[in-house]
Amino acid sequence: MSNIETVSSLGEIEALRRTVSKLKPGKHTILGSGDDSAIVATSNDRFVVSTDTMVEGNDFRIDWSSAFDLGWKAVATNISDVTAMGAKPTALVVALMVPKNTEITWLEEFANGLQAAIDVLAPDAEIVGGDLASANQVVVSVTAFGDLEGREAKTRSGAKVGDILAVAGTLGQAACGLALLFSEDRDAISAYDNWVDVQKRPNPPIGAGILAVEATSMMDISDGLAMDANRIATASGVRLDIDRQALDGYCAVLDDVASRIGQSSLDWVVFGGEDHSLLATFPSDAKLPRGFKKIGSVSAGEGVYLDGKPLANNGWDSISALAELNLDK
Amino acid sequence: MSNIETVSSLGEIEALRRTVSKLKPGKHTILGSGDDSAIVATSNDRFVVSTDTMVEGNDFRIDWSSAFDLGWKAVATNISDVTAMGAKPTALVVALMVPKNTEITWLEEFANGLQAAIDVLAPDAEIVGGDLASANQVVVSVTAFGDLEGREAKTRSGAKVGDILAVAGTLGQAACGLALLFSEDRDAISAYDNWVDVQKRPNPPIGAGILAVEATSMMDISDGLAMDANRIATASGVRLDIDRQALDGYCAVLDDVASRIGQSSLDWVVFGGEDHSLLATFPSDAKLPRGFKKIGSVSAGEGVYLDGKPLANNGWDSISALAELNLDK
Repeated sequence: MSNIETVSSLGEIEALRRTVSKLKPGKHTILGSGDDSAIVATSNDRFVVSTDTMVEGNDFRIDWSSAFDLGWKAVATNISDVTAMGAKPTALVVALMVPKNTEITWLEEFANGLQAAIDVLAPDAEIVGGDLASANQVVVSVTAFGDLEGREAKTRSGAKVGDILAVAGTLGQAACGLALLFSEDRDAISAYDNWVDVQKRPNPPIGAGILAVEATSMMDISDGLAMDANRIATASGVRLDIDRQALDGYCAVLDDVASRIGQSSLDWVVFGGEDHSLLATFPSDAKLPRGFKKIGSVSAGEGVYLDGKPLANNGWDSISALAELNLDK
Repeated sequence: MSNIETVSSLGEIEALRRTVSKLKPGKHTILGSGDDSAIVATSNDRFVVSTDTMVEGNDFRIDWSSAFDLGWKAVATNISDVTAMGAKPTALVVALMVPKNTEITWLEEFANGLQAAIDVLAPDAEIVGGDLASANQVVVSVTAFGDLEGREAKTRSGAKVGDILAVAGTLGQAACGLALLFSEDRDAISAYDNWVDVQKRPNPPIGAGILAVEATSMMDISDGLAMDANRIATASGVRLDIDRQALDGYCAVLDDVASRIGQSSLDWVVFGGEDHSLLATFPSDAKLPRGFKKIGSVSAGEGVYLDGKPLANNGWDSISALAELNLDK
């Protein structure tokens, strides 16, 4: 047992070298990792940047997520924020903190997860810098960069009265996966592992974000449809109306598992976070880009409504709000 | 006591809002924090990026460094890596992890430290994004951006035979400050608090980096002159000779305190890290920019030599290497 290589036995520099060696070069990198700084190309006079951190115990559990899963999710969630601006992901930097006794094979699997997510979601991007440090718990802090390629950025504040409201990607599946993990029902977790996979390795609709050139506002749904729709409503100074029937398809695929573990698929779809789908508004005469589906409309006023009833500005943990609104089936 | 506001009592969103409200806008920000991503201007088709993380217990101690100190140091060390490329700092993102019971006044002081360092070191820059999370120990992860403004980047690999070797900034002062803190000699710490301040709030020679347009190679001395000079020698495929006499001035200001606590000023100057000064090579006919001082020369070969004796590739903790070389006075 004493010959298992750990961060402590190899040292941080060698451990980092072995991890970085798993990563492939990208198309936007002018100077990669290894100097004081990296240099990343932009096609014009600006770049898009987003940062997010995942902390063991708060954002993930080591007994639920493998090192590969964590690497994947760290890339996917950050790239999602970049594409939600309408930008093409170009590069990332990754700071990883792990306990000293972490095995090198864990780090290698983490790097494999980083690279796999890049290969699928942003094949031209590269991890251009990183940092490995020891800490009491695992922390992953990622900063991602994107290139607008001359396009206007899509912010939360551009929704206009008369626009339509649309979603690209899944709704409620990541919350369903989390509920399955919390249920500790091994048979259910195994039977519905596709939803657990969405929770552990989200697959944001990257292409849809870049295609949404006509969107008047756009954002990444990380905290749930209700909370994030409220953010667009507030930033744009408008009212958003969501059509309950338009959510039927999102609920239908989750109904079986919801019944099985005694929860509500609508709860997951409306309040569940971490799908990292895109919520956007488009002019009513726009042709929705591939991947987007209409779920509602924009009007004068404020707040978010579901079939005319005000929808609480709550994220994933708002079961009480759902009960009050009697939205549950 | 129960009305002390903490991260836990206010919630992370309100705690982050109070912290961010301390920060000023910058001149390179096209879109600041508050959307999915920020947008930063570049004067041409590329940007410089560097990331670094500080972990409580490894990189700092809460009983030695105030929240203000940590905020300052997080900005200073990252900006130093950007200017070591010859770039002008334009923006930063900051991820902060703190225990849940951390008081809001601590966060506010951290933000004051971030802003104070920006005001002094990079007044046109802005913190364009951030993340606040709870964790078991304090972790600060910063990513800094810079604009080359059309200049060539200064890497570690461009040193040429015949160049001169030069330093901008202090050498050994941060190590002296750290030795004072470890000495727990309260009178000495108080008497020599200027060196303790360099350790806690480093003041890198930002302007010198941007002025070093003729430098053939450049880097930030974060791990000590010996180790970082070896990095330039290796990356450039050259030998670096350091002139012992050229280090006299750096040692002289530290001699008193070195005697007082029984350590060696030369040890600090040669092997001490965290001054975040600049080490660069220039053509022999170049006029050294303001702030740079010649300390040696570049020749064919490999490795780093001090008055002709090979200098071990060691950082701060290499007292044994010094003893072997008999460099100590």
